[in-house]
Amino acid sequence: MQHPTTFRKPRAERWQQVLDVAAEVFSEKSYDAASLQEIADRVGIKKGSLFNYIQTKAALRDHLVREVYLKEFMLFSQWARDGGGAIERLAAMVRGHLEDFAEDGPRMAVYLNEVRRLDPAARKQLFGNRTFPDLFAEVIAQGQAEGVIRPELDAELASRAILILVRSVHQWSLAPPREAAGQLVQTILRGHSTPQGVGILAAMDLT
Amino acid sequence: MQHPTTFRKPRAERWQQVLDVAAEVFSEKSYDAASLQEIADRVGIKKGSLFNYIQTKAALRDHLVREVYLKEFMLFSQWARDGGGAIERLAAMVRGHLEDFAEDGPRMAVYLNEVRRLDPAARKQLFGNRTFPDLFAEVIAQGQAEGVIRPELDAELASRAILILVRSVHQWSLAPPREAAGQLVQTILRGHSTPQGVGILAAMDLT
Repeated sequence: MQHPTTFRKPRAERWQQVLDVAAEVFSEKSYDAASLQEIADRVGIKKGSLFNYIQTKAALRDHLVREVYLKEFMLFSQWARDGGGAIERLAAMVRGHLEDFAEDGPRMAVYLNEVRRLDPAARKQLFGNRTFPDLFAEVIAQGQAEGVIRPELDAELASRAILILVRSVHQWSLAPPREAAGQLVQTILRGHSTPQGVGILAAMDLT
Repeated sequence: MQHPTTFRKPRAERWQQVLDVAAEVFSEKSYDAASLQEIADRVGIKKGSLFNYIQTKAALRDHLVREVYLKEFMLFSQWARDGGGAIERLAAMVRGHLEDFAEDGPRMAVYLNEVRRLDPAARKQLFGNRTFPDLFAEVIAQGQAEGVIRPELDAELASRAILILVRSVHQWSLAPPREAAGQLVQTILRGHSTPQGVGILAAMDLT
């Protein structure tokens, strides 16, 4: 604290602001084209002050990727377990993920664009043995056992297809995800459902 | 060329090679991180020789984007018109696009990642008034008139959802698109179909 008389944001609050701005800059310009200087400028601090929080651009990116992963994976695990049959749980997973994209587009975009660049050892440590597609595939297999998901589907491929479509909403510019969510959830899940599953979906209000 | 005795590729062939290598480098490293030097190195020519073909990295990118767009749009227009009902034509569009991704992943990736960076005037000139989603939306509306596509769907949103899922295959690393194509086409189109449309799809061999 060089200047005790200057009004300064509390450190934790400033750090959150640094992360918010970094997510914005990385998602607007791409990680490669972004600079710590620009992040500092937008936060309104000197570049040197950034080093109180983070040492490198890569460390900032890795922190954002971890943060998104840990939050989303915890939510996904809950949605995958929560009440109802497989169709209801899949719908909760798809809608929840769509809503998170609508609420925090920049952070989610950074995660999707940059997760592959995480150092393999760090990635393994973070992800462990159970991934997003694994969680989807488990509920899809449960749905096949319940007779609501088409039995001929490859659960692993289906789980990736669902995840990719949901995540691709961050590329959309035409339809706001929130408005589109109901139609998307219906369409994605109907494609995977037996007539019995379609009946359950038709009775659900997913908007 | 400094050494007249050296075997030289014909100019048109060398230009295709430059484009192939540029697509590879842009899609592997991102456009921002790529350099003309690396492209020249991989082609096996001096950087100065590249300037016989192209002046800037941006011009190389714009050429690739245009090339992919013109080819795919021509194919899409054919698939959207060709024989059969709306379901058959949608299936041809989805499968065809998937196959092109399987066959020329790097070029397609460059198109998807970079099309937004095209200068707005150049973009308007290239795209005209009819886009990929427009072509899909027209066939979806025809399908709604035929009673095979769910009447409650917003055709514009549906066309974007289909296109985005198909295009997102370039992000897949687990399932080779070719193997996955049959299941994907079925799942995407069933999600949009009435029971009558699902019956048509169930009878089609889409692998």
